Amino acid sequence: MCELLGISSRRLTRLTFSLEALAAHSGPLSTARDGWGAGFYQGRDVALFREPGAASDSAMVRLLETQGPDTTLAISHIRHATLGEVKLANTQPFVRELVGRTHLFAHNGHLPGISHSEKFCLDRFNPVGEADSEHAFCALMERMKILWQSPSASPSVEERLALVTAYAADLRQLGPANFLYADGDVLFAHGHRRMQSVTGKIEPPGLFMLVRQCCCESDAFEAEGVSIAPGYQEVVLLASVPLSNESWRPLQEGEVVAISIGKVVDKHQPTH
Amino acid sequence: MCELLGISSRRLTRLTFSLEALAAHSGPLSTARDGWGAGFYQGRDVALFREPGAASDSAMVRLLETQGPDTTLAISHIRHATLGEVKLANTQPFVRELVGRTHLFAHNGHLPGISHSEKFCLDRFNPVGEADSEHAFCALMERMKILWQSPSASPSVEERLALVTAYAADLRQLGPANFLYADGDVLFAHGHRRMQSVTGKIEPPGLFMLVRQCCCESDAFEAEGVSIAPGYQEVVLLASVPLSNESWRPLQEGEVVAISIGKVVDKHQPTH
Repeated sequence: MCELLGISSRRLTRLTFSLEALAAHSGPLSTARDGWGAGFYQGRDVALFREPGAASDSAMVRLLETQGPDTTLAISHIRHATLGEVKLANTQPFVRELVGRTHLFAHNGHLPGISHSEKFCLDRFNPVGEADSEHAFCALMERMKILWQSPSASPSVEERLALVTAYAADLRQLGPANFLYADGDVLFAHGHRRMQSVTGKIEPPGLFMLVRQCCCESDAFEAEGVSIAPGYQEVVLLASVPLSNESWRPLQEGEVVAISIGKVVDKHQPTH
Repeated sequence: MCELLGISSRRLTRLTFSLEALAAHSGPLSTARDGWGAGFYQGRDVALFREPGAASDSAMVRLLETQGPDTTLAISHIRHATLGEVKLANTQPFVRELVGRTHLFAHNGHLPGISHSEKFCLDRFNPVGEADSEHAFCALMERMKILWQSPSASPSVEERLALVTAYAADLRQLGPANFLYADGDVLFAHGHRRMQSVTGKIEPPGLFMLVRQCCCESDAFEAEGVSIAPGYQEVVLLASVPLSNESWRPLQEGEVVAISIGKVVDKHQPTH
C-alpha cells in the first residue's frame, strides 16, 4: 500500500521524518520498494526529492531524515507500484506550475479508466509518466486553471474548497481517491477508502488527521516517523495511518479539509 | 558570474561533477554562494536538485558529487545573484511540463526589461520567482507550446532549432543570453557574451563546447569538475569556460547547437 503524509505548521521548522518508519505502517513486511518522494514548500516553490527505488537503500533519504529543508508545508509519498512501471516519472508527489505557484499533489488508491473518462479530460497539463495518480493531478490542474486566472489574484479558500470537493466526488466514482494537494498557500486533504490491514477490506478511513499545539519552548512533537523541532508551534498532520498514540481523527468518506499554517481553515463534511 | 554546464551522452552513465570546482572557474575568490542546481533527465522526467545557498556548505552537493542519478542528459547552474533575492524560486535550472515532457532551462546573463517586453509576453507559463532567467524560460515555453501540440507528436529537430534560434535572437536584444535548454530529447545550447575574467569585458564567447569520444572500455573522461565513467561513450559537454586542456570550441556569438545522445545533430551558425 502507498503511504501519504502531509504536514502544515505555523512556524517554519525543520521536519525530520523517517520514510522507513512510515513504510512499516503498511504491514510488518512492507518496505518503500517502488519509490518515495517528498516535497517541501519554500515560499511559492517546492524543493522536491524523489527516487524510483527503495527508501531503505537511499543515501538521499538518510540525508533528508536529518537535514531536510525548513518548511511550513510538506507532502510525502511512499510508492508501492500498482499502475505504471517503477521509474522517476511515476514517482509521487507530482508538481506543476500554475499562475506562478508550484502546485503539489500525491494520491493513494487506484483510479482505473481515468485516462478515458470525460470528467478528467486533459488539455494544458499532461502526465509525464503513466501513473493514474498523475493523470488525476493534471485533471485537477485543468479545473484549477479556471479558478486561478492570474498571478496577482488568488481565489478564496471557499472557492478552492468547493472545487476540490466537486473534483474529489468525481474521483471517488473511479476508485479509492485519498489525496493531498497543496497550492503553496493551502493544503487540501481528501479522505476516502483504503485497504485496511486488520480487515483486509478496502473501506474508510483513508486518511487520519492530528491537530496539535506545542505550547512552550520545551514542547516537541514526536510521532512514529515524524518529529518537529521543539518550541511554540501549531501543526496539522495527515497520514494514511495514525503515527502516534494521540487522538488522530479518521477523515470521513468524502471529507475534504483545508489547512493553512498549522490550522484547519475550512472543511467539507459529507452528509450521509 | 554564473556558471553553466550541460552534458549529453550516448550511453547512460553516472556523471560525477564538482560544483565547487566549476565555481572556481569564475575566479580565484569565487564561490557558488547564492545557489546551485542540477537537473538529470531520467526518461522524459527530470530529477532536479536545487538549493538557494552555498554549494560549499551543502551535504546535498557532496551526495550528488558521488551518487548523482544515472543519466544521458543533464544541466547544471551555479548562481551569483544579480536580479531577485537568494531563494529557491530564483535558483536554476527551472522546469516546466509541456505535452507530457519535463523541459529544463538554465541561463547566464542579465535580461533587463524582459518582463515588460512585448516579445516575451506570458500567458500559460508564469515565473514562480523574480529572476529574469525564469521569465525568459516561460517565454520560450509560450513559443514552444505552439510547436508541441500533442503528447503523441514531436516536432522535427529542424523546427525546434529554428524556434530556439529566433527566440535567442530576440533575447540577445535585451542582454547577455547564454543558455542551455532541453526538452528531454534534444539539448540546445546558445552562446552569446559573457564577462571575461581576463579582459573584464562582456564579450564572446559565452559558452564552450567539447565533443568527445571514448573508444575503449578503459577510456574515461576527466575534466575539472566533471568525470564520466569509463567505457565506450560519445559525449558533448557545454560549459561557461573550458574545463580541461582539450580542444573546447567557443560558440560564436548567436550560435545555437542542437545535441542528442552525445552528438551534435544540427546547428545554426550566424552569418556576420
